Amino acid sequence: ARNYNISVIPGDGIGKEVMPEGIRVLERAASLYGFTIAQKWQDFACCDYYVKHGQMMPDDWKDQIGKPDAIFFGAVGWPNTVPDHISLWGSLLQFRREYDQYVNLRPVRLMPGVPCPLVGREPGDIDFWVVRENTEGEYSSVGGKMFPGTDREIVIQETVMTRHGTDRVLRYAFDLAATRTRKHVTSATKSNGIAITMPWWDERVEEMAKNYPTVTHDKYHIDILTAQFVLNPDRFDVVVASNLFGDILSDLGPACTGTIGVAPSGNINPDGTHPSLFEPVHGSAPDIAGKGIANPVGQIWSAAMMLEHLGEAEAAAAIMRAVETVLAEPGLRTGDLKGTANTAQCGRAIAEAL
Amino acid sequence: ARNYNISVIPGDGIGKEVMPEGIRVLERAASLYGFTIAQKWQDFACCDYYVKHGQMMPDDWKDQIGKPDAIFFGAVGWPNTVPDHISLWGSLLQFRREYDQYVNLRPVRLMPGVPCPLVGREPGDIDFWVVRENTEGEYSSVGGKMFPGTDREIVIQETVMTRHGTDRVLRYAFDLAATRTRKHVTSATKSNGIAITMPWWDERVEEMAKNYPTVTHDKYHIDILTAQFVLNPDRFDVVVASNLFGDILSDLGPACTGTIGVAPSGNINPDGTHPSLFEPVHGSAPDIAGKGIANPVGQIWSAAMMLEHLGEAEAAAAIMRAVETVLAEPGLRTGDLKGTANTAQCGRAIAEAL
Ligand SMILES: CC(C)[C@H](C(=O)O)[C@@H](O)C(=O)O
Ligand SMILES: CC(C)[C@H](C(=O)O)[C@@H](O)C(=O)O
Repeated sequence: ARNYNISVIPGDGIGKEVMPEGIRVLERAASLYGFTIAQKWQDFACCDYYVKHGQMMPDDWKDQIGKPDAIFFGAVGWPNTVPDHISLWGSLLQFRREYDQYVNLRPVRLMPGVPCPLVGREPGDIDFWVVRENTEGEYSSVGGKMFPGTDREIVIQETVMTRHGTDRVLRYAFDLAATRTRKHVTSATKSNGIAITMPWWDERVEEMAKNYPTVTHDKYHIDILTAQFVLNPDRFDVVVASNLFGDILSDLGPACTGTIGVAPSGNINPDGTHPSLFEPVHGSAPDIAGKGIANPVGQIWSAAMMLEHLGEAEAAAAIMRAVETVLAEPGLRTGDLKGTANTAQCGRAIAEAL
Repeated sequence: ARNYNISVIPGDGIGKEVMPEGIRVLERAASLYGFTIAQKWQDFACCDYYVKHGQMMPDDWKDQIGKPDAIFFGAVGWPNTVPDHISLWGSLLQFRREYDQYVNLRPVRLMPGVPCPLVGREPGDIDFWVVRENTEGEYSSVGGKMFPGTDREIVIQETVMTRHGTDRVLRYAFDLAATRTRKHVTSATKSNGIAITMPWWDERVEEMAKNYPTVTHDKYHIDILTAQFVLNPDRFDVVVASNLFGDILSDLGPACTGTIGVAPSGNINPDGTHPSLFEPVHGSAPDIAGKGIANPVGQIWSAAMMLEHLGEAEAAAAIMRAVETVLAEPGLRTGDLKGTANTAQCGRAIAEAL
């Protein structure tokens, strides 16, 4: 019997609205494909919890989460009550580190029915992965201020990269490329400007590449790479990047395919020693929260990524076919894609199309 | 009599090919608008010089350059002979710092004749400035390695921001916005992830904004801001950013308007205590260098920015009209814009259109 335990954390804003649709589709997939999904919902890792308790999560959050097979996450952040750097570092970024989810994996794929902002691109033209380092690099909490509050004020923040942390994400990217048709890795760098860490990153890429004779690779400085995402998005297969560069590229990529509203992501611990976490790329979207109009596809596509990760590849593929069917129908997609459906209507349509 | 002394530094690769066209147009503008341009050409700040002398510039480069009214620069970098971080830090990045060119100013403007990669955008729709901090921030040379060459290797690089350096570029951005119709500043941040420097950057923006009651402002995290450049480029007026974020946005912006081949930039010392430097956004382009096919418009538009800076606004505007006229003619633009002209033909056409 294939029985999975998942931890469900809706979070803030539209996270709470799209999560039920993700669950609806998951449950339908389970009943159709003969597995079960046991859910444990959590009310922490959201700003409501912070307002009540003065912190984003209870001290024993790890015990409360236990040992699920995966974590299904909505979106976190509500800047009106809690500054973003507090809400994020106290929840999502903490999961990524403490569960050592060292790969952030995001597809960039042009889907039928999603209006592409780039001239002349068709579904099929754009189909690549961004593999982002997810635990170290530019997202450090090391640094501080000197002469605070005075005219001489100096603020320092350290980027910290390790060979351990860099090599393992590069390995993941090359392994992934080796399974694909084009077998190509593009590395994001900035070794001409960021003159200590990034030349070293380039060296690690060259070292890793030696282990993969069948995989080709190249590198672009991050400035020109963002330009290439717009001008030649069909050129990419697997793009590997540091934490910050990967963050940028995995919002820009989905934007080039129409919207970040449908994009999913996996925060993956490839070693399996900790649970991996699946969440839409979009945030909690305070501007549209509470209206029931958020696009649930990012959450539902994240459910498909989670099932793939759990070994339910068939169910995952079926969800993606259902998503494509529904996106092609203006009456079933949400307003951000010039459709007329609300969140629940779109989610139900995908569950039915399964 | 309006007489200007400029230092001319062609640099590497296509820098050497587009510079003569920039000069051609400058000289023609001078004769038409009644001023003179005295040129002092320099053979350093290029990789040929490095190959001969083991360094990018002579020790007395400041004396050799003297006190010009401006520096007209081509492009530097030839990775086959000199690694980029050595060629750039030994030339362009040194100018920016030692001449305290603390603003990097780049227009993002959709020009007639330049095919826009974004659906449905017309010339006039996209017209904004990126104001980039140009001397500090993420481009630091502070940091190093621990346990080099071992599995425990750790590499650290510090981002260093100062109140002095941050406030002056913010002031420049708000001053610029105050002169424009829409009077709006957008700040690029990443205060949800880069948790020491960027929340502080946000605070400095709020402080500065208080001095400009007629200017509105907002902020976006850099990831979603790159997405907005693709999805809503008409939304921006003046975008202010740190060194790295500004570097990214000022390549991405021109890409969204079709090509970085036509984009110019000013490395500006607003105080006038040192010369400012004007250069195209594109690099030395080893892949097309030596063929005489590079697009000279980035260099020529940089000449216009330089004249504007020198107080020759009328001549600058005339150059821009000539550029627009020529770009509209396929027979006069270069191959990167699906035209048939070579570098010299395009440059001559702009000089004649003046
Ligand atoms: C060549 C490189 C160091 C430089 C930079 O990053 O500043 C370039 O990209 C630019 O934008 O002028
Ligand atoms: C919310 C923020 C801290 C986060 C990040 O920068 O990692 C988000 O942008 C993401 O990409 O998951």
